[in-house]
Amino acid sequence: MDTVKRLSEHPLAEAGGVRLIGIPKTIDNDIEGTDHTPGYGSAAKFVASAVQEIIRDASVYSARSFTAVEVMGREAGWLTCASALPRLTGGSAPDLVYPPELGFDPGRFAADVGEVFKYKNTVVAAVGEGIRYAGGEPVGLTSATHTADGFSHHYYNGTSERLCKIIEEAFACKTRAVTLNTLQRCASHLASLRDLTDASEIGRAAVRAAISGESGVMMAFRRGGGIEYSSEIVSAPLSGAANRTRRVPREYFNEAGNNVTGECLQYILPLVQGEAEIFYKDGIPLHFKPFY
Amino acid sequence: MDTVKRLSEHPLAEAGGVRLIGIPKTIDNDIEGTDHTPGYGSAAKFVASAVQEIIRDASVYSARSFTAVEVMGREAGWLTCASALPRLTGGSAPDLVYPPELGFDPGRFAADVGEVFKYKNTVVAAVGEGIRYAGGEPVGLTSATHTADGFSHHYYNGTSERLCKIIEEAFACKTRAVTLNTLQRCASHLASLRDLTDASEIGRAAVRAAISGESGVMMAFRRGGGIEYSSEIVSAPLSGAANRTRRVPREYFNEAGNNVTGECLQYILPLVQGEAEIFYKDGIPLHFKPFY
Repeated sequence: MDTVKRLSEHPLAEAGGVRLIGIPKTIDNDIEGTDHTPGYGSAAKFVASAVQEIIRDASVYSARSFTAVEVMGREAGWLTCASALPRLTGGSAPDLVYPPELGFDPGRFAADVGEVFKYKNTVVAAVGEGIRYAGGEPVGLTSATHTADGFSHHYYNGTSERLCKIIEEAFACKTRAVTLNTLQRCASHLASLRDLTDASEIGRAAVRAAISGESGVMMAFRRGGGIEYSSEIVSAPLSGAANRTRRVPREYFNEAGNNVTGECLQYILPLVQGEAEIFYKDGIPLHFKPFY
Repeated sequence: MDTVKRLSEHPLAEAGGVRLIGIPKTIDNDIEGTDHTPGYGSAAKFVASAVQEIIRDASVYSARSFTAVEVMGREAGWLTCASALPRLTGGSAPDLVYPPELGFDPGRFAADVGEVFKYKNTVVAAVGEGIRYAGGEPVGLTSATHTADGFSHHYYNGTSERLCKIIEEAFACKTRAVTLNTLQRCASHLASLRDLTDASEIGRAAVRAAISGESGVMMAFRRGGGIEYSSEIVSAPLSGAANRTRRVPREYFNEAGNNVTGECLQYILPLVQGEAEIFYKDGIPLHFKPFY
């Protein structure tokens, strides 16, 4: 959005009649000025579905165990929060949720897990890859971060492994670190139909806005206020979105800071509605092949 | 199967008229004496689908990159081989496949990747978690293995990370290690209908065998010889299956030992056919909740 803003303010753009419209897009859902971003709904649906399956897998063993599922999101915990969606649908949700928005305290964390062990043997926690200690140091930095994406942000590897280490030391039980990794952003076989529709519609709205003479704005979803979910696409100022990260608000987490509220899940649930039709060929999902 | 064999040979079992039938079951597909095992078809379908999505994800970036996808299978590479199934369905398959059956040579591996870099920028390799150097030392042992399953086998963590390290050193390019982890065995949202049917039918056949007086045998799938896939369920001796691991035969790999043959994929493909119906509630797959 910062790039769109700079280009739209460039004298040549104005002189040449070039119109620039920002279209939000990220699985992280962390762009300010829009209710949500295309990509998030599908990633949220995958995270909720996968974590529910991992909980089921962990629950078939009778021995005491702890599983940490590491979810994408360096600064914002929107995807980590989505792991708890099955709470609203009668399914299985993680016992504990640790987003990057709140400081991580190893002692408090071990105590949290100990509380759950009092009434069940298998504890599953969802954890944002970018959680940090109170001092600001990332929990995952203890492990090698040998790759960086195009914007030179670092990946936090090893966050879930660190959590497992803490629980092994405290409870001497079996642990497992699961990193959902790139599947969160590419598991098209579990896409949200609402998300796919949103993505098409916001693109269309952007073209319409440009044709009607707008420039230097971002297209944004604005959610309606009724009980039933509704949203419309509007133009929003780029200045609100450029270089700012939209984090999960504090009131979307419980007081203890180790799980999400029903209000948070009610915000997310409409975005994962509907299933995209999957085309199979001989049992394998069919993709369109790129021509390179 | 060893337990079934011992119990069936116990004097009390014979004296009491207790009948014992082994029913094979493992996602690893590594039980001797049966064409395949329930669980494998669904896990193979997930691995093929997920790796195809990971290849697509990797291919959207123009910078040179290497991705290693770590697949379950400590001794047998059946699941690792399944990653190449999209080759038969017009989709995207890994450029390189390294199963635990063949010795792993870091220098040969770097040369293999270099060959692929000559004609494309994004290389994806599927690698069995249990691959070993020629001397027998597991590649993944360099990383901590802080968990063990109920049978005290060790998990090999870090196999894919080790491969990434080798490629970073050889080509100074971006790398990513992806471990499919437990989702391989629990992603019920991508189950193979053939696999689910097989699982029910072999259970039914085992009950029928017991009722008809059999004991001390294993139920097994025997594949028909025609061009079209067919299989029947037969009784097989337990002695063939107990304490033996069925590995992928050498002729299912190419001469270079870095990919699978079409014959191998033709063996696997019938096992991933058909999709189980998924029931969604409010956008999230519905599970039956265990009562504990």
